[in-house]
Order: sequence, then C-alpha cells, then structure tokens
Amino acid sequence: MFELHPQLAQDTRHLGDLSLCQLRLLNNATLPWFVLVPRRGEISEIYQLTAEEQQQLWHETTTVSKIVMQTFAGDKLNIGAIGNIVPQLHMHVVVRYTNDPAWPAPVWGKLPVQAYSNEEFDVVRTAVVTALTTHGIELGAH
Amino acid sequence: MFELHPQLAQDTRHLGDLSLCQLRLLNNATLPWFVLVPRRGEISEIYQLTAEEQQQLWHETTTVSKIVMQTFAGDKLNIGAIGNIVPQLHMHVVVRYTNDPAWPAPVWGKLPVQAYSNEEFDVVRTAVVTALTTHGIELGAH
Repeated sequence: MFELHPQLAQDTRHLGDLSLCQLRLLNNATLPWFVLVPRRGEISEIYQLTAEEQQQLWHETTTVSKIVMQTFAGDKLNIGAIGNIVPQLHMHVVVRYTNDPAWPAPVWGKLPVQAYSNEEFDVVRTAVVTALTTHGIELGAH
Repeated sequence: MFELHPQLAQDTRHLGDLSLCQLRLLNNATLPWFVLVPRRGEISEIYQLTAEEQQQLWHETTTVSKIVMQTFAGDKLNIGAIGNIVPQLHMHVVVRYTNDPAWPAPVWGKLPVQAYSNEEFDVVRTAVVTALTTHGIELGAH
C-alpha cells in the first residue's frame, strides 16, 4: 500500500499522477523543482522496484526532465535520488539556472525558503499540465 | 567522438567499460563513489541520448547501484546526474553510511579529500570486478 511520507506531503504540492509516480512540486518558488514519487509502498532504492517499474520510473523521469527544461528554459538539469532524510523513494528533477542562488552547487539544503503563493503555484501547474498534454500525457488522480 | 572531460580524468580513476559507460571511481577513499560516463560525445543531459542509450544508461546505473550497495554494505544509495561544473554527462552512484562524514547531507562538496593509495584502489577495483563477474558482467576496455 502506498502512503506518501509526511515530510514529502509537507514540503511538496501534488500536480497529478503519472502511470507510476505522483508528480509533485517542491513548495519553493526559487526554482522549478519537481519530485516524482513511485506509488509503491516501502521502497527506498530504485533497484527494489520490479524491472518493469524501474523502466517506467526512468521513462517518467526523463520525460518530465525534457518537458520542464523546455517549459522553464533551464540552463542545466539536476536529477537525483538521495533519500537520506526521507527514506521513501523519490526522484528530484530540478531546473537550474547559471544565475540561481545556489549555482553551481547542488541545490539540496542551499536554497532560501520561499513558498509559492496559490497564484504562483497555479501558474506553474498550468504550464506543466499544458506542456505534458502537448506531449500526449494526461495527469490523472489515483 | 567520445573524449573524457579533463576534470573527470583528474578526479576519477578508470575501473573498466560497461556496454555504454566508462565505470570510474572517484579518487576519494572516504566513500565508495562511482561515476558512470556514457561514451558519447557532446552530451550534457540524459534526454539527449537516444531512447536505447537512455535505457542502457539506466540499466547500467541500476545494476552498478545494486552491486556496490551489496559489496560495500551501504546504508543508503545516492544517485545523481548534476553536471553544473563538468557538463559532460556523468552519473554519480554513491554508497552512503549513516556514520559517514557528510551524512545526512548530499555528498557533493562535503567530503574531506583523501586520495586512494594504489593498494586501496586495487582492493576496491578487485571487489567491484569480482562482484560484477558474479553477476555475469565483464568490464571491457574500449
């Protein structure tokens, strides 16, 4: 049974569901920072997923990567599965800019906290949903 | 044409070649820290690889992940494709321990520099080669 880790529930907002993962937005308006959480219980490492699920995770990660880099005109993408603090498997997909506050360091623990307003969140969500739809991907709600 | 970025050549040592990637060891004895570099020229992002190469990269990353976690009895795996400083696409696979010097922070920029002696390097290389062989994977030299 999948239940979202309370820390992820607190730090991120739900955009919608891909086939395997919840697609979530880190609630920090400094950067477009997405988190993909496979809807599987008790998984900490990618290799604990089935081979088919691994392939789907990578596919969703790469697809989201490409789309958000285009949508938010990023300079570099940062992808990571860390999970040292929140053990539930989750994949970070972060759009970076050469003038962002943490550049060129990795972004974890380096960003000022700046929550989205509801209006800002809606702008990001609409942009992502539109870009996904353009690529034939509909976000669902599981 | 593939040519290893000089910074990667300086920071890492070559263990051998998988089908797509050079498998390299970061020259820091603090942690078992591996770097996979696809032997493709001028690639910075995973989605710039062909679909087949992407699948192979993920496959090699996951395979190495599982094997090094077993071989070095890690507590958590950290995987990342960052590339803010070295633009040539490379995947980090880092074995973490809850008592390592950077825990629980991500490891980039957080480790004391402590190069391997040749003897230590040989121990790690032998352990990795043996574990890969056990899983039916022979490192080549391209």
